[in-house]
Amino acid sequence: MPTTSPPPTASKLRLRRLGIDTYQEPVLYMHRDCHVCHSEGFEAQSRVELALGGRSIIATLNVVSGDFLSPTEAGLSEAAWRLLKAQEGDMVALRHPAPLESLGHVRAKVYGRRLSPAAITAVIEDVAAGHYSDLQLAAFVTACAGDRLDLEETIALTRAMVNVGERMHWGDGLVMDKHCVGGLPGNRTTMVIVPIVAACGLRMPKTSSRAITSPAGTADTMETLAPVDLDVAQIRRVVERTGGCIVWGGAVRLSPADDILIRVERPLDLDSQGQLVASVLSKKAAAGSTHVVIDMPVGLTAKVRSAQAATLLGRQLEQVGQALGMQVCVVQTDGLAPVGRGIGPALEARDVLSVLRLETQAPADLAQRSLQLAGRILEFGGAAAPGSGLALATSVLADGRAWRKFQAICEAQGGLREPPVAAYQQAVPALHSGSVIAIDNRRLARIAKLAGAPKAVCAGIDLHVRLGEVVERGQPLFTLHAATPGELAYALEYATSQAEAVHVMEDAT
Amino acid sequence: MPTTSPPPTASKLRLRRLGIDTYQEPVLYMHRDCHVCHSEGFEAQSRVELALGGRSIIATLNVVSGDFLSPTEAGLSEAAWRLLKAQEGDMVALRHPAPLESLGHVRAKVYGRRLSPAAITAVIEDVAAGHYSDLQLAAFVTACAGDRLDLEETIALTRAMVNVGERMHWGDGLVMDKHCVGGLPGNRTTMVIVPIVAACGLRMPKTSSRAITSPAGTADTMETLAPVDLDVAQIRRVVERTGGCIVWGGAVRLSPADDILIRVERPLDLDSQGQLVASVLSKKAAAGSTHVVIDMPVGLTAKVRSAQAATLLGRQLEQVGQALGMQVCVVQTDGLAPVGRGIGPALEARDVLSVLRLETQAPADLAQRSLQLAGRILEFGGAAAPGSGLALATSVLADGRAWRKFQAICEAQGGLREPPVAAYQQAVPALHSGSVIAIDNRRLARIAKLAGAPKAVCAGIDLHVRLGEVVERGQPLFTLHAATPGELAYALEYATSQAEAVHVMEDAT
Repeated sequence: MPTTSPPPTASKLRLRRLGIDTYQEPVLYMHRDCHVCHSEGFEAQSRVELALGGRSIIATLNVVSGDFLSPTEAGLSEAAWRLLKAQEGDMVALRHPAPLESLGHVRAKVYGRRLSPAAITAVIEDVAAGHYSDLQLAAFVTACAGDRLDLEETIALTRAMVNVGERMHWGDGLVMDKHCVGGLPGNRTTMVIVPIVAACGLRMPKTSSRAITSPAGTADTMETLAPVDLDVAQIRRVVERTGGCIVWGGAVRLSPADDILIRVERPLDLDSQGQLVASVLSKKAAAGSTHVVIDMPVGLTAKVRSAQAATLLGRQLEQVGQALGMQVCVVQTDGLAPVGRGIGPALEARDVLSVLRLETQAPADLAQRSLQLAGRILEFGGAAAPGSGLALATSVLADGRAWRKFQAICEAQGGLREPPVAAYQQAVPALHSGSVIAIDNRRLARIAKLAGAPKAVCAGIDLHVRLGEVVERGQPLFTLHAATPGELAYALEYATSQAEAVHVMEDAT
Repeated sequence: MPTTSPPPTASKLRLRRLGIDTYQEPVLYMHRDCHVCHSEGFEAQSRVELALGGRSIIATLNVVSGDFLSPTEAGLSEAAWRLLKAQEGDMVALRHPAPLESLGHVRAKVYGRRLSPAAITAVIEDVAAGHYSDLQLAAFVTACAGDRLDLEETIALTRAMVNVGERMHWGDGLVMDKHCVGGLPGNRTTMVIVPIVAACGLRMPKTSSRAITSPAGTADTMETLAPVDLDVAQIRRVVERTGGCIVWGGAVRLSPADDILIRVERPLDLDSQGQLVASVLSKKAAAGSTHVVIDMPVGLTAKVRSAQAATLLGRQLEQVGQALGMQVCVVQTDGLAPVGRGIGPALEARDVLSVLRLETQAPADLAQRSLQLAGRILEFGGAAAPGSGLALATSVLADGRAWRKFQAICEAQGGLREPPVAAYQQAVPALHSGSVIAIDNRRLARIAKLAGAPKAVCAGIDLHVRLGEVVERGQPLFTLHAATPGELAYALEYATSQAEAVHVMEDAT
């Protein structure tokens, strides 16, 4: 044996589950007196490859001098433990990972160069394999933010993201889908549209996301009513039985690289046109969709702020969709104010239920938007003649078929339940009488997040007024909902400092 | 007391030093059953403000389900422990930090907008205060990389970085300084120049950096010969006694925001013209320098690859220097190949010593470059007439005055010592006979880093051949030095796969 190579057994350590949640970044903990640390020259923030059985992952090293870890142990964060599918006491092999060649492409992008499809594929394969540290992911996300990916790069990114994950196949026939480009709190039309479309005989297996920077994603909201973490076989059974589903896409490894990028995008709160397009369409292509209607709310405080930006983004969605073999139809909608009354998973679910159950207090705007989009999908899929989709959708909602279909879908997904109600609530009153002249989606979303949404599913905002409404001084504008007094106090502090969230202009007297 | 606010004592926990080295990111560990975690709605990756005495820091939360931390404790990483100046058992108050408004400026920059001086100041103040997470720092560094900062932004960034740190004042008279824009392994001219210049009666208090992406910075190299972690008062005493010093700038909080940005830049391996200029000149301005000579090696595999790029960068250095009240003179030098023989802290220190001691095997290129630059500084500072600087510098080196001055400086800094020698060494031979037609600085730097430099100070490369030299098959091209067999094996594996690191072209026969 050559003296320059360490003996193969020297780099094995006993695994220990430390139970540290690092928000999905795989972290390895080694004692500073560990012989592997010394012989391999590992130090804090080193990237270390761990091999166990046939599996290997790359983790970021934290060096421990405390006494809760012994020098013969390798401690793992929860994410690393899961990825490695480790068992307490397993012996793990540790070594330097091969140099991450695809980082050169990330650097090229940072410096403003275009990336070839091969370069993008190399990056996304490494991302999906868990080879990138959070810092490296942050650099890639930042380098691609704004409009820094052109059409060809976006197509390549979308393809690469589809190819590293699972794909669903539905055989012949149309597979309808829809997506809302975020930024409009409470816009839960999906949960009304899917049962209408499925009730009309079109197939609509809908995979949704959890919130990225918003107080709730459709998957978060649906989860307060029924299980959404279904695997591919379970989804197939639900769709075969009911024609539709509303599930979380992340549980089925459709475009898993997207989920990894999103966990870094979320704390950075960055928008990226190319990544948005790739995120939306890679999920759709992987889900096997053939026809995709995109709901794009446009408004000063929505994600898309102008008709011009909407047209640019819409064209890119259509072009990238076409390149991936999908028909994409973009519908610009009003993005001036939230839809429905609730903001936050459970509060939005409550609105959806009241629309489907035809309750008198159901928010009319949520119903109307859902019917408008459902009508477009029915026409797009040939279930309604051009111009007659809205009428068909309206009748399917009005006669209870949509509500029965929704119940069937929830039952097939694992059972319908009522959404939870927050233990802590506090109304925020108007400081003076006048008219509501503006509602700031971004500030409201921020308040709802400070109140605990989306992690606390009962948390958020219940809006009591609409744009243009006349209010009296002291009349509640909205009610904060929170799971804990701390979050309620924190949201209240911010809400009262941001009077423009719901802007009441005093009437001239 | 209103029911919506938690009682003030509810958010206090007993501090516990966990001894986890997270590479300077402040991390807080709380048990998932901790009442503060619940009442405040904290979750993994939440940013949490910790207040102790008059101090407060912001840390990233990791949630612990393991048994090494109790629900009544708040565990801290080493960085958090240091920043908070905590004592075991202290009770710390925890709360949500105020929203980080300056992140809006970072996002604006990510999207390609120009930043005002006020915006840059706000970002840098928050960075220096430790308010940014590593992910947020990575986004800022990436958004400013390449040439994304213009002249005005670079001036503002430099000023802001000076203003958040300490400043040294030297009273009347010139304060000479020099800096080498990196990328050329082994280019340790500073350690030869300072004693020459100081021996000629000019003041030269030199603060240097540690390596960012290279195998050694001047501070790393100097540290193998004498202490470099001096505070402001100690530096002042050394300079008063000897006229010069060679210390680490980071220990004196000159431009501390630069050190924070650098710890994120290092693992990302990104270059940024604006940040490079701000990094160099903020340190110089904070150090009180009036005259700065910049050594800028130009070559295909150096940091600056073309004369055009060098001219652009040089102009920006001169303009930003002027805006901050410094005279800056840029000297383009040959960047085709490493300077001296050693690459890595101790090996480079050995080369410096041999030049100063006038040993026959001293690398002539290191001596010549040092004399050339020292001559320019002597002329720049008026200690030599124009055209006579080189001759003066040469005589000061040749008659031993430079070596005596260097010894005096080392003694004043805490004592001269010999650099350590690596326990593991292995020669890498030429695979065939021929001529050395190219030496790749980047590949050599990478090999030296894989061997453990700069953390393992004895690690690196000892080059045995020069550009143009004729070699026989089997003749050693360079010798790898490492502190551990693992690192030696790893560097050897990479070195043998990268024959172009020292490119030998077979002679036509």
